Amino acid sequence: MLNSDSKDQVTLGIIGFGAFGRLIAQHLHPYFQLYAFDPAAPAAGRDESLGVTFADIATVAKCRIVVLAMPVNQLEQAIAAISPHLEPGTLVLDVGSVKVIPANIMRRDLPAHVDIIGTHPLFGPQSAREGIKGLKIALCPIRGGRVGRVAAFLRATLGLKVFVTTPEAHDQELATVQGLTHLIAKVLVQMEPLPTRMTTSSFDMIMKAVEMVRYDAPEVFLAIERSNPYSASVREQFFKLSADLNSSLGGSKS
Amino acid sequence: MLNSDSKDQVTLGIIGFGAFGRLIAQHLHPYFQLYAFDPAAPAAGRDESLGVTFADIATVAKCRIVVLAMPVNQLEQAIAAISPHLEPGTLVLDVGSVKVIPANIMRRDLPAHVDIIGTHPLFGPQSAREGIKGLKIALCPIRGGRVGRVAAFLRATLGLKVFVTTPEAHDQELATVQGLTHLIAKVLVQMEPLPTRMTTSSFDMIMKAVEMVRYDAPEVFLAIERSNPYSASVREQFFKLSADLNSSLGGSKS
Repeated sequence: MLNSDSKDQVTLGIIGFGAFGRLIAQHLHPYFQLYAFDPAAPAAGRDESLGVTFADIATVAKCRIVVLAMPVNQLEQAIAAISPHLEPGTLVLDVGSVKVIPANIMRRDLPAHVDIIGTHPLFGPQSAREGIKGLKIALCPIRGGRVGRVAAFLRATLGLKVFVTTPEAHDQELATVQGLTHLIAKVLVQMEPLPTRMTTSSFDMIMKAVEMVRYDAPEVFLAIERSNPYSASVREQFFKLSADLNSSLGGSKS
Repeated sequence: MLNSDSKDQVTLGIIGFGAFGRLIAQHLHPYFQLYAFDPAAPAAGRDESLGVTFADIATVAKCRIVVLAMPVNQLEQAIAAISPHLEPGTLVLDVGSVKVIPANIMRRDLPAHVDIIGTHPLFGPQSAREGIKGLKIALCPIRGGRVGRVAAFLRATLGLKVFVTTPEAHDQELATVQGLTHLIAKVLVQMEPLPTRMTTSSFDMIMKAVEMVRYDAPEVFLAIERSNPYSASVREQFFKLSADLNSSLGGSKS
């Protein structure tokens, strides 16, 4: 059984095997026996380079640790599918860019016999290209007392900077951090072609930031802008200050 | 006389000795005999660390090369003050962030017996902190045939990337490069305090870009936004796309 207390590594199941699921596998396969399920992935077999065994959702849900790595808007459906198969004492984590809504869904829909931690790795495939050491992750303990051990593993073994926080504090801070970054990137991408010759270092840096987020799945942008309860007010403030600046420079209020 | 063809180095006079004038001195003093005038600088004496001798404006204007390093809105006045003292064959350069307006003023007001090149070093004291090698400069030949020699010096001796262009092509490209950078920076600075804990690499990069331009003199921002004939339309496009995005996300049109 996957779930047995054998001499083998602890089993970890990844539900949702998109770009982020693969990034998880890449960094966790040395430490866990990895299983993955995704409707778009092979139903069985193994990806040796990522150290992942593909299996049906019931099998993957029986792992000791289950990571939900699908877009936020598919979380409820995924939880409904895995819940009947989750064993008592399983640790369930999500990895979404927002935390208040997923925390509420997980607390409400996951069986009472599993522990829950909301996580937000503050990086993606682009920013993790040169490794994840020194990158940041937020942890929101939701049920059970295992956040300390998870934080210690992420710090000591993966070299991440760990922030233990609440879903509300997370979403408030990230509404600015990600909300503004993605908003600015979205607008600049629409203004392309942008200059590449006579550029300044500061412009180059902004464009490098744009490069890091522009290929994120559309769901990521929508989750950040719509599923974070604090995003709308940050956005309004940005647009209001922009409009004021434009009119102070003699432009029309648009 | 400063202007003599002695065995000494060529004389170079800096009119306007603010942050950028000092940056020029720092990088050119090994190659030129430097003089500087600024109403706010000492009237005489020497700054040994920058290799600069302070003198009255008439003396500084008699150098073989004269660099105008004051804000764009003080250019006309400065040219009126130096013009009577400029010797035939002098090379006059400006260093402003916009080029169409200064080029017109220099062409119209400087005596016919001097050569003129408009320049825009695409860096400032912040971005040049770790040296200027590899940084960029735009050159706009306006009168006389000396742009080739100047470009060769900047490339071979200072290690700059040189773009020879027209004032119009320069301002068009920089309206986007600098116009957008300074606009975004201005808005973000107004939104402070901004998060510094749970940040992403892309947000950190945008904030690093903001750091590089936020301490620029207010005249730099105004020159970029107001004295560049192409800035208003870039700004309008940015604000229009932002407002469209805001309303597509369900926000109010502000």
